[in-house]
Amino acid sequence: MKEWSRKVYLELPRPCEEDHRSMQKRLLAALRDCGSFCAGNEPKSELVRDETDIRIRPEVLNSCLEVCEQADWQVTASLGFDGRIWEMLDLEPGDTTAQHYGLCADLGSTTIVMELINLNTGETLASESVFNPQIAYGDDILTRIFYTKDHPERRRELQEATAKGFRKLMERLSEKTGVDTGKCNILTVAGNTTMIHFLLGLDAFGVFQSPYAVQTLEPEVCRGAELGIPIQGFVYICPAMENYLGGDIISGMLATGLPDREEISVFLDVGTNGELVVGNREFLLAGAGAAGPALEGGSVRTGMRAENGAVDRVTTEHGQLKAHVIGGTEAKGICGSGIVDLLAELYLNGWIDLRGRFQVTETEIEESAGGGEKGQSRIPGLTKQLLRDAASEKDTEYAIEYAPGLYFYQSDIDEFIRTKAAAMTMVEYMMNLIGLTMEDVGCFYVAGAFGTHIDKESAVTIGMYPDMDRDKIISPGNTSLKGAKKLLLDRSLKEKAETIIERMQYVQFGAVEEFIELMRAAQAIPHTDLQRFPSVSARLEQRRKSDPKTDPKTDPKT
Amino acid sequence: MKEWSRKVYLELPRPCEEDHRSMQKRLLAALRDCGSFCAGNEPKSELVRDETDIRIRPEVLNSCLEVCEQADWQVTASLGFDGRIWEMLDLEPGDTTAQHYGLCADLGSTTIVMELINLNTGETLASESVFNPQIAYGDDILTRIFYTKDHPERRRELQEATAKGFRKLMERLSEKTGVDTGKCNILTVAGNTTMIHFLLGLDAFGVFQSPYAVQTLEPEVCRGAELGIPIQGFVYICPAMENYLGGDIISGMLATGLPDREEISVFLDVGTNGELVVGNREFLLAGAGAAGPALEGGSVRTGMRAENGAVDRVTTEHGQLKAHVIGGTEAKGICGSGIVDLLAELYLNGWIDLRGRFQVTETEIEESAGGGEKGQSRIPGLTKQLLRDAASEKDTEYAIEYAPGLYFYQSDIDEFIRTKAAAMTMVEYMMNLIGLTMEDVGCFYVAGAFGTHIDKESAVTIGMYPDMDRDKIISPGNTSLKGAKKLLLDRSLKEKAETIIERMQYVQFGAVEEFIELMRAAQAIPHTDLQRFPSVSARLEQRRKSDPKTDPKTDPKT
Repeated sequence: MKEWSRKVYLELPRPCEEDHRSMQKRLLAALRDCGSFCAGNEPKSELVRDETDIRIRPEVLNSCLEVCEQADWQVTASLGFDGRIWEMLDLEPGDTTAQHYGLCADLGSTTIVMELINLNTGETLASESVFNPQIAYGDDILTRIFYTKDHPERRRELQEATAKGFRKLMERLSEKTGVDTGKCNILTVAGNTTMIHFLLGLDAFGVFQSPYAVQTLEPEVCRGAELGIPIQGFVYICPAMENYLGGDIISGMLATGLPDREEISVFLDVGTNGELVVGNREFLLAGAGAAGPALEGGSVRTGMRAENGAVDRVTTEHGQLKAHVIGGTEAKGICGSGIVDLLAELYLNGWIDLRGRFQVTETEIEESAGGGEKGQSRIPGLTKQLLRDAASEKDTEYAIEYAPGLYFYQSDIDEFIRTKAAAMTMVEYMMNLIGLTMEDVGCFYVAGAFGTHIDKESAVTIGMYPDMDRDKIISPGNTSLKGAKKLLLDRSLKEKAETIIERMQYVQFGAVEEFIELMRAAQAIPHTDLQRFPSVSARLEQRRKSDPKTDPKTDPKT
Repeated sequence: MKEWSRKVYLELPRPCEEDHRSMQKRLLAALRDCGSFCAGNEPKSELVRDETDIRIRPEVLNSCLEVCEQADWQVTASLGFDGRIWEMLDLEPGDTTAQHYGLCADLGSTTIVMELINLNTGETLASESVFNPQIAYGDDILTRIFYTKDHPERRRELQEATAKGFRKLMERLSEKTGVDTGKCNILTVAGNTTMIHFLLGLDAFGVFQSPYAVQTLEPEVCRGAELGIPIQGFVYICPAMENYLGGDIISGMLATGLPDREEISVFLDVGTNGELVVGNREFLLAGAGAAGPALEGGSVRTGMRAENGAVDRVTTEHGQLKAHVIGGTEAKGICGSGIVDLLAELYLNGWIDLRGRFQVTETEIEESAGGGEKGQSRIPGLTKQLLRDAASEKDTEYAIEYAPGLYFYQSDIDEFIRTKAAAMTMVEYMMNLIGLTMEDVGCFYVAGAFGTHIDKESAVTIGMYPDMDRDKIISPGNTSLKGAKKLLLDRSLKEKAETIIERMQYVQFGAVEEFIELMRAAQAIPHTDLQRFPSVSARLEQRRKSDPKTDPKTDPKT
């Protein structure tokens, strides 16, 4: 275990006739004498040189004499590692080694989360999140990238917006804890490749444009000041493997420990994109695909983030859908976990078939087609709704009212099924590549807020998760942040991250014929091959028994 | 020979499906492939690691894509060495390796001199000098130091004043040559310890105050930007040995090569202070003392810098002093070389004795005491002059009119003799220490403007230089600047400078009894022991023959 940050209490010898070394020499000698830096006086190897080579810039040296005189030459030095050597970043009067803090952050395209960590204990003192101020330049990443394209000066705007987010988080953490976050010697950041490019003020067009050559995957350790982040020390950014396989995923590897274990695990991160890693200590396969924002409610008409007013749980009670709303307020829309529940319920109630089509009879269609009002369908809440921006009244679609005045459309369902199929096909394709099935998998990680909030049973029911031992399905939460925290506490994980990247093999999805075929088969609820989901069959059976009317095997159209 | 700065022409492979490395990786791979960086692919030793470890900061990476696309991927990278590793500082379109420049400077307390060097050829393209803008805060160093004492914020003023001087020099060099000096990857600076402290914004009080613990003697390599010096690269400051033995002297060692030679040499730098090094490749003794500004005309009533209007040469023609004025204008004062000539002439003419006293008879005193007007002295131009700020008319002194209306006072002579004695006693004391005489000395270097302008014969006559083979008395000019240039061209001299500092032994002058005794003996023209100056005896003899009236051995007072 190696640190990024050190605080060292020093009782400096006062200058006198016999010892009139310069302040710089006096400090360096005292720092090198400290146990933590000592590995023999003579630097013997490269490593030892790194440990004993300490820089003190004039700017910092400037105040040292005053601090020493004020504090009777009993002072505490703050040191940060710049990626190659140590630098003394601050000198404080007295012994302040007990106040030793660092920051870690997950830089997401929607949200930036930051934690203040006690570096002496590893304890998280506080956590804060803000919406990424980049959103002002576009809700989705591509809009932001296009905003900067051919306008190099706009990269600065994106950079400054990102820095603003970090500053806000630092302020809030300071307010919450009373800790001066500006005194941190280190901030570790994990984020996807585009986010990191924006943080560094770089052109991110290469992330999306063939031949996908980006500006950097392993950026240099920067000074906070260089990036407009007011910490006195350095910013370490978790390296990325590929344009679509960012530092957030590598950080997730560190968080879960997947690359070190004997058992094979699957790591799936579903956000703006879907990223997948399958492997163990022997091999690591990784891939990314357009798992898309649909899963988080992004491209669904009434989709919204999991915040107050969002339907996050849907159940069926007495043959009627029942929505749970975050914050207990009036429902304003539906978030990812709500959608998964809704689809599971629709399917289990026999209201949609395995293709996701609403199960209405011709008569019902005729009757409800009349005026867009609540029809006579046997499915409570199903109506035909005019599409927004419809050219004529013919542009209607079946939609289910999941909460008062809120409709989930047929095309919303279709979109969601396509997306979940894409995500699941990545997993399946990769398992096929290595000749294994889900039964060989030790852990199935579903990272991110999505995995945290979703109901496992519902997710299995709609075929978003494989039908496996539920204990093996793990929602590790924000693994990007958790990995960043691990990196913060142990600098040697920097090399580990680099090794993971070297070991990883990138698997290209999409254009392969097999992939397309697998994907087509997966575009069903839960899957065209129901035998792969025995527990779903059992639930269906159970639901049918309790309410014999709803039998998805009865397809009224055929 | 190692460089501080490199320009490398690269023909980069374009990104394509098969090669979509990041810009950073692409550049680094190309740079490492270059012969100059290549020492095997694997970094085997620390040294090699330094050579192959190259940093590219996001700020620089930012413009690379545009430059590459504009230049058909044929570009020139500029690299600077930060003291530990290389950093890519700029990328230019096309092949610009022919334009490769660096800067070196001597940061003097009165004058800053800077040269623009073609790093491909080592040629000096232009040289410029400005008065050090610090002068606004005090003519002498101590005033400036006291200005900042107890006012830490004033250090910033001194720092900014110094940076302003550097910026002015860069602008002038750019104007003169058409070279964009901002594109320099390196500037080397040599200066005394106080000057370096001011350049870095540091408290310099320790230079003069017991126990003489300064802030730094070996400052870190800085970015130009950190110091307000607008070069894209780094500033390397020649390290110092002691508070009074600054980087200017170490730089002088590199310039003269004294520490490498078999023969023993003496290096004397006379400026605000007097610094001395005696040694060869076996040993190096160094010391510093209050040789003082008197030698440069500083504490002489009509003393001035060697500029237009200054008397810089004095001869005797037809029994009368004759002054040469720089610029051929009316005389405004006298500079160091003029003073040395004047004293030599006064002595050779028998107008002052070996103690420097004007040779006037009692009668002459009585007569001239009357009204401060030109007296009846046998010494042309000698009068009694009222002292400035005199309390009464009794405060008069003998003074010689060396140019119309300009007087050199008895107390000016006394001051000058004390100062030259101090300088020469340092040399003598050190030679005694090692048990050698000037006959064992290969070269006697007198560095600085003082040594350059002074007439060797006059200097020997007044005992300022030892009476030795004139060819061995060398005026190497501004060795601080010359050493800085050497450092600029060869980075390995950084280690050499550090070795010189390690080898050097500092000799304390002043309080030692022997030193005081030697100094007393040296307070004469040329010396109380005239036998040590046989050539001066010969000149006296010759002068007496040509004008029998002037015989210094005839002391009218005795």
